[in-house]
Amino acid sequence: MSVAVSPLAPKSYPDMPALRGVRMATAAAGIKYKNRTDVLLMVFDKPASVAGVFTKSKCPSAPVDFCRANLGGGAARAVVVNSGNANAFTGLKGKAATELTAKSAAAAVGCSEGEVFLASTGVIGEPLDASKFAGVLGDMNVRAEADFWQEAAKAIMTTDTYPKVASRTAEIGGVIVTINGIAKGAGMIAPDMATMLSFVVTDADIEPAALQALLSAGVGPTFNSVTVDSDTSTSDTLMLFATGAAAEDGQVKVTNADDERLSGFRAALNDLLKDLALQVVRDGEGARKMVEVTVTGAENDAAAKKIALSIANSPLVKTAVAGEDANWGRVVMAVGKSGEMADRDRLAIWFGGVRVAVNGERDPNYSEAETSAVMKLEDITVKVDIGLGQGTATVWTCDLTKEYVAINGDYRS
Amino acid sequence: MSVAVSPLAPKSYPDMPALRGVRMATAAAGIKYKNRTDVLLMVFDKPASVAGVFTKSKCPSAPVDFCRANLGGGAARAVVVNSGNANAFTGLKGKAATELTAKSAAAAVGCSEGEVFLASTGVIGEPLDASKFAGVLGDMNVRAEADFWQEAAKAIMTTDTYPKVASRTAEIGGVIVTINGIAKGAGMIAPDMATMLSFVVTDADIEPAALQALLSAGVGPTFNSVTVDSDTSTSDTLMLFATGAAAEDGQVKVTNADDERLSGFRAALNDLLKDLALQVVRDGEGARKMVEVTVTGAENDAAAKKIALSIANSPLVKTAVAGEDANWGRVVMAVGKSGEMADRDRLAIWFGGVRVAVNGERDPNYSEAETSAVMKLEDITVKVDIGLGQGTATVWTCDLTKEYVAINGDYRS
Repeated sequence: MSVAVSPLAPKSYPDMPALRGVRMATAAAGIKYKNRTDVLLMVFDKPASVAGVFTKSKCPSAPVDFCRANLGGGAARAVVVNSGNANAFTGLKGKAATELTAKSAAAAVGCSEGEVFLASTGVIGEPLDASKFAGVLGDMNVRAEADFWQEAAKAIMTTDTYPKVASRTAEIGGVIVTINGIAKGAGMIAPDMATMLSFVVTDADIEPAALQALLSAGVGPTFNSVTVDSDTSTSDTLMLFATGAAAEDGQVKVTNADDERLSGFRAALNDLLKDLALQVVRDGEGARKMVEVTVTGAENDAAAKKIALSIANSPLVKTAVAGEDANWGRVVMAVGKSGEMADRDRLAIWFGGVRVAVNGERDPNYSEAETSAVMKLEDITVKVDIGLGQGTATVWTCDLTKEYVAINGDYRS
Repeated sequence: MSVAVSPLAPKSYPDMPALRGVRMATAAAGIKYKNRTDVLLMVFDKPASVAGVFTKSKCPSAPVDFCRANLGGGAARAVVVNSGNANAFTGLKGKAATELTAKSAAAAVGCSEGEVFLASTGVIGEPLDASKFAGVLGDMNVRAEADFWQEAAKAIMTTDTYPKVASRTAEIGGVIVTINGIAKGAGMIAPDMATMLSFVVTDADIEPAALQALLSAGVGPTFNSVTVDSDTSTSDTLMLFATGAAAEDGQVKVTNADDERLSGFRAALNDLLKDLALQVVRDGEGARKMVEVTVTGAENDAAAKKIALSIANSPLVKTAVAGEDANWGRVVMAVGKSGEMADRDRLAIWFGGVRVAVNGERDPNYSEAETSAVMKLEDITVKVDIGLGQGTATVWTCDLTKEYVAINGDYRS
């Protein structure tokens, strides 16, 4: 198991400001690891609006079922996240574990179990001993503080090599609001929601339905456009909470996602979601290179995205990137296997700024040296023009390295 | 680039009998490699019935286009196969190369260009210098002999570590007929036809339409049920030729695939196709273990196959197998991401004969030692019962190893 920090990790971390209305604490409950924090408690002292998007897996984890059921209530007082055990494929025991955790959290925070949200990450199929939470949540609620985002991000890591945090500000009707988010990822990362665990909180005052609409729209070009290994987790969870504390500064509550006052907030939220999603890719298991794949000229945007994902998920494309080989023939292969409309003789392909193929064959001006220089970079862009229509999409992935195989051949995750 | 023979290679090779009506020769035309055979010529002295199935790629190679166009004629006199260059994504030059090759072959053998079939394998995007064939095909036709199957199989290898051959006999109306086949595979192997190059010849006397029906039906549970890396080649080609020489022994020509006299032939053909397909998987790039995935109890057979392929293509399942880790949680993940109907709490999973999960959780009698012993085997079976319906499917794959990454990170294929 690789322990060094990914070479693609951000060179610096943003300051994560405290955010009014939410407090956090972490603890070492001994779920799987000894002597490392493995539980995160987020407390909203007043009920926060809540929105969520979850894995499309037909075999979701017990916490995903639990959150979906509570989402209708629209209000959150507590979030409990643990690493070390996904509480997935644990049968009736899994459901019992979520109920016991929610009961413990509700007692600790002083709320109803319907206001508790849960997420678990780690090994699948092992029963989760939720009684371990009961002993720590009460104390965590007492200790929880607002200026704790970096620690919170660390507590939910599994094979992640660095904590993932992002912060943005926006204006709603003249009032400045803040959005903070954390995420964990690393492996079992693919679209079809939401590819990992991520928790985003804002002090804006926004009603649950509007918050859900913002989140559902924001996830498409961000978390649903990244893939590490095409494998979709049973536990993928992305939640957005609005504490409403900005009402103290005079922000008038927003009830509709189409409200014009949200334009800046929407942009800031989407930018933060993209930031977190790309951090997940940059920490893909074994990743040494980040790849941005853009498809233009497809029949429509959906076709463009399917083609882009076919390229981004191709083991042969990803190993070629790992080997710094500008193997555009494999890009053609991946376009062809996507099943979407394509005309071999209209394709054009670029690596970085270098056009390597045009009109269905190698570019007459192709320069091996120039292309090789592009492939040596840490961040590589692949662009494919299908030449048929107006559809475009961009997705992000990383290379497929021997380290990915080593990490996943050794680790019972 | 790994050069050692796959540890999963057959322990012994079958004798490949000469087959009446077809002669073969190989030559070193210097397409890419020096001093190795890279061209195969098959000659049918009398026109053979012909059937074919090809890649479903939207960006097929020029030879695939060429074969599809000629298939309607129903008759074959010559097949030219080269390794070292796939003549794919070569634009108008690619079409010109197929035309020049066909012209050279027609002149050498004395047939029309419509009776020539072509296949190319190797690097994509490099122009193929077809003039090199002109110099060798005439001599090859003179040298071509019937007892040449092993050499033929060797000539079409790329990253294959062993030649793939199979032979069967069957009875049609009391007359014994033979079926011989060769294949090449290794990487860029996935269903959606036909995952590699394979040429099968029989001396049976069967009309083209019946032959096509037999082949189209036979490919589903064989070549279309194997996957190495989920990547579909631009060049996948499987062709079946019937020389009709068995007519000399009194075999009455078969004109309809539903003819009862074909029952033995159909079984022998399907068995041979499966044999060749599994040889392709056993030579998957970097493969150290062969995995048979069987899904039962799915909504229907198509759903079962989709689930089975989701398991067989999952990088996390395949790396777990490489690491000899009975990580059934990843099997659950792959079932869930397939999109097909599944109920987490009805799933049961077996590795080898050991049931590891039942009723949506770990089997109460789960034995880590017993399961670990299964994972150390070279041939591993994974069985999943969905518990919902009667749909079943079996597919085959290999593990994902560091060698796969090494082979494909270094080789411009």
